[in-house]
Amino acid sequence: MTEAVAAARRSRITPEREAELYGAVLDLLREVGYDALTMDAVAARTRSSKATLYRQWGGKADLVVKALRHSKRGHIEEIDTGTLRGDLHALVAMEDDCVMAQNSALLRGIAMAMHHNEDLREAFKEQIVDAEIVNGRQMLQRAVDRGEVRADCPAIDFMVHMMVGGFATRTLLEDQPPTQAFLTSYIDAVVLPALGV
Amino acid sequence: MTEAVAAARRSRITPEREAELYGAVLDLLREVGYDALTMDAVAARTRSSKATLYRQWGGKADLVVKALRHSKRGHIEEIDTGTLRGDLHALVAMEDDCVMAQNSALLRGIAMAMHHNEDLREAFKEQIVDAEIVNGRQMLQRAVDRGEVRADCPAIDFMVHMMVGGFATRTLLEDQPPTQAFLTSYIDAVVLPALGV
Repeated sequence: MTEAVAAARRSRITPEREAELYGAVLDLLREVGYDALTMDAVAARTRSSKATLYRQWGGKADLVVKALRHSKRGHIEEIDTGTLRGDLHALVAMEDDCVMAQNSALLRGIAMAMHHNEDLREAFKEQIVDAEIVNGRQMLQRAVDRGEVRADCPAIDFMVHMMVGGFATRTLLEDQPPTQAFLTSYIDAVVLPALGV
Repeated sequence: MTEAVAAARRSRITPEREAELYGAVLDLLREVGYDALTMDAVAARTRSSKATLYRQWGGKADLVVKALRHSKRGHIEEIDTGTLRGDLHALVAMEDDCVMAQNSALLRGIAMAMHHNEDLREAFKEQIVDAEIVNGRQMLQRAVDRGEVRADCPAIDFMVHMMVGGFATRTLLEDQPPTQAFLTSYIDAVVLPALGV
């Protein structure tokens, strides 16, 4: 199903109802995890029919990834402070530490589930990772256009590895969620110097 | 059990027998994964008694982590090429792409299992991560002593985040193992510039 057809089908429900439904999906995810989450449970919790859920989202992986994407408060594409440092700091400031801790726990669970669910891995990559990469490239392109970053700087190709490194290493190895203070220090110490800023 | 007591108890078996046992543990890990691996299966595969395994390793988490640590061919502490760039490239060259792909799949499975096994997470952190951090710090300290890296360079504190970022992002998001070529480019593009080299 194409994105346009899916959007048209989803448009039968109001944005308020859609937000309520995504909220219920994230609540269930936090309660039982991806593997134990069933479309039956989502249908019961949201007083929907399973047929409606399948018609509008296709399946569990798609519904969960759309709910995750919807939960992001701000939008990276709205950030444009005039400097790369300002843009990256604004990116970190979009979510306060409490929200970041919640999302970190959720993403950790999703990362585990991706290990043995190929459909989830594909949906997550297509709808979240690839979208973030596109947005990140636009941010970097503005920095190149302003003359802050050289167009041939080799670190440009590793932007996502650098960012995920800070976020995931903290979550996986240090067993604590990333904080705004940690990510801001990491950006200043690693990401900007690697980009020659 | 202290490390010294454990070593004394392990010393009752020969190094060859120990290597054989660790090899069997890694084979089983690859076949069934951490959660389904049992001490019974290890005992059967290695013709040991479970009592011996428990007496010598304490439990599954400790046995698996020691087997992982033992599987590393070279030793980072033996690397000393005279430059930080040379040392980091030598680190990458310790494992060829085939071994790296095998270890990456194994580590991915272990990372997933760590999510819900606190004893595995603790054993992995204590015996692998912390040891790598100590070795990495020694490598960096030599670079500081040679005047390659400033002692107050803020990226020093993020060395493990940078390295794990390259390795894990590739494994988790790009669904392919890291290669020597990839990691060497990453070190040249991100790690060394961030450290001001």
